[in-house]
Amino acid sequence: MNADPTDSVMLHERDARGVHRFTLNTPRSFNVLSEAMLAALQHGLDGVAADDQARAVVIGAAGKAFCAGHDLKEMRAQPDQAYYQALFARCTRVMLAIRRLEVPVVARVQGLATAAGCQLVAQCDLAVAAHEARFGVNGIDVGLFCATPGVALSRNLLPKQAMEMLLTGEFIDADEARARGLVNRVVAAEELDAEVERLLVRLLDKPKEALAMGKALFYRQLETGVESAYQLAGQTMACNMAHPVAQEGVQAFIDKRAPSWRR
Amino acid sequence: MNADPTDSVMLHERDARGVHRFTLNTPRSFNVLSEAMLAALQHGLDGVAADDQARAVVIGAAGKAFCAGHDLKEMRAQPDQAYYQALFARCTRVMLAIRRLEVPVVARVQGLATAAGCQLVAQCDLAVAAHEARFGVNGIDVGLFCATPGVALSRNLLPKQAMEMLLTGEFIDADEARARGLVNRVVAAEELDAEVERLLVRLLDKPKEALAMGKALFYRQLETGVESAYQLAGQTMACNMAHPVAQEGVQAFIDKRAPSWRR
Amino acid sequence: MNADPTDSVMLHERDARGVHRFTLNTPRSFNVLSEAMLAALQHGLDGVAADDQARAVVIGAAGKAFCAGHDLKEMRAQPDQAYYQALFARCTRVMLAIRRLEVPVVARVQGLATAAGCQLVAQCDLAVAAHEARFGVNGIDVGLFCATPGVALSRNLLPKQAMEMLLTGEFIDADEARARGLVNRVVAAEELDAEVERLLVRLLDKPKEALAMGKALFYRQLETGVESAYQLAGQTMACNMAHPVAQEGVQAFIDKRAPSWRR
Repeated sequence: MNADPTDSVMLHERDARGVHRFTLNTPRSFNVLSEAMLAALQHGLDGVAADDQARAVVIGAAGKAFCAGHDLKEMRAQPDQAYYQALFARCTRVMLAIRRLEVPVVARVQGLATAAGCQLVAQCDLAVAAHEARFGVNGIDVGLFCATPGVALSRNLLPKQAMEMLLTGEFIDADEARARGLVNRVVAAEELDAEVERLLVRLLDKPKEALAMGKALFYRQLETGVESAYQLAGQTMACNMAHPVAQEGVQAFIDKRAPSWRR
Repeated sequence: MNADPTDSVMLHERDARGVHRFTLNTPRSFNVLSEAMLAALQHGLDGVAADDQARAVVIGAAGKAFCAGHDLKEMRAQPDQAYYQALFARCTRVMLAIRRLEVPVVARVQGLATAAGCQLVAQCDLAVAAHEARFGVNGIDVGLFCATPGVALSRNLLPKQAMEMLLTGEFIDADEARARGLVNRVVAAEELDAEVERLLVRLLDKPKEALAMGKALFYRQLETGVESAYQLAGQTMACNMAHPVAQEGVQAFIDKRAPSWRR
Repeated sequence: MNADPTDSVMLHERDARGVHRFTLNTPRSFNVLSEAMLAALQHGLDGVAADDQARAVVIGAAGKAFCAGHDLKEMRAQPDQAYYQALFARCTRVMLAIRRLEVPVVARVQGLATAAGCQLVAQCDLAVAAHEARFGVNGIDVGLFCATPGVALSRNLLPKQAMEMLLTGEFIDADEARARGLVNRVVAAEELDAEVERLLVRLLDKPKEALAMGKALFYRQLETGVESAYQLAGQTMACNMAHPVAQEGVQAFIDKRAPSWRR
């Protein structure tokens, strides 16, 4: 999966089960979302989208930090609003690609997740963090309000909690992040991979088609009123129920046996 | 209230105070939302809507489980997408009837609430649970993503928490359900009826007209922007304040006496 | 700042740093939002909006209660729906002025915050409370559902938690308010001013322009779908990054020195 030269900043592995693992791999610069890193992420996500047998994505990082956000040096070198606009548009394209992917995307957070790094965690469908992980949207400390990270953050946390982080730049630890809804699970650092694996096993246990229908519906219905949401969800669920995977799953349940698609 | 034959799967009592109690009553099949159960619920809710003296609804269940969701055997017997669509539309009609009812609807959850059973809890205005209760949207375990339950669930919980339950099928216990916003109160099983009664007493203590205006406004304003929400709320509140119940309530407050409508 | 006679019910101080402090000052009537108090708040907020050097607002109160909501005696004296509608519109204007202000608005809650007093806390961008503070939307106890307070409350808390408070009129304490997202920080009463000051120091440490762009964007993006939110946020962030304060902040970060705008 490493044909594209932009991939060098990010490792991309795929196992036999269809689990794609991205590892942000510029630890000396705290895995910042440089142009090269954004290109690698986009390339990786496009690769997953093109892989019919893909089942899940894990986004992790090498070194002490998970991701320190945008590359401030690179940004400072081009003091041009049009450049910035294009840069944030590119970052948004990555974020929306995570959301649009048919398979679940899990953040594996071993360290500091800052600004757009925190956004990356927030934008993933699920997140597992080590106790050492910390989360902040502290662009405001250099005079740059974390506007785009705030979009994802405010769709994970309650508003006053998101607002405090955005206005003060203060960090929260992993337990607080879990309590507030930013991450799903917090474990000791040495347990991080095992916990991600436990989660993956749960996800791989389900039929891909049902997860794909469900993920798309989930985000779509969140943005409409409840009546329209129920209408969309009813269509999705009827379609899912009529699908062979659910017919087999329900029959297996009635027969008290494992469904044929269960790994 | 038991004239309709579909009611046999659900007990429906009404006390002298106007409190309607529904008891899902097919414990051997874990009170699944069969066609008969959905019809009974709809019939019951229609009955409450037609009762001018109704004050509250409590939805409970007999046996160890609260409700195990849709009736998978019944669904499997009719492998037809149009049938499923009609079924989920019927279920949605029940859910929206709970929301549209003028009186508060309280879930009394003594055991397992699964899939559309969890949705039923989420859709109620308030919920009281026993410590033993557990909550899950685990349709995905049979290959059927809980799309319609997700509509109600994601309007109770924060998104990543709802997403984890929907994608993994894993259950949460009653304390976690309370912390996440799915239920309001958790008590020991032997305290469940007493706690529901305490809540009812608080509700019956208020004028029906004010609760009705308020409940309708609450859900309506949630689906609009803040400016429009304030406009709707201002109209509701002016209308409520000009109503005799508020005039009397406020006068009683000034006079340091109980209002005439207080039970 | 006390030229307007309506100000007498509210103290309004401004320090050399641009921090405006409002103190609701009718403790014997529990600082109710009388017409005079609403006029004073509006006048104060208009004053902040007109102050180019304003940096933050703190809304506090004198005496044991923070604010007991609308002035029921005044309302009862004018039993007229058109009057009520105008009154709630005036209150809404105050609430939206808090939201529209370019600078952060912090509630300093030392005691009971009731009905529209609870709304005032909810509508502020941030809130710090003493352990003794309690929060309720108990208009329903006099037959008046807290519809407009519910608009702000339901944009701070999860829905079932807001609904319970609105339907039952029951209060929550400061720790519960923090856990539910209504306030950001809870401290001992004697620490309240010091904690507000710590928060202010964090806010004053950032450039005003970035906070202003960020606050406006935050509330605007919350009311749109995620794609549109990202588009708005990308524009804001590009504009912010091209601004001299961010250029200097980022350069200072690269140079490992404090930015020139840091206090």
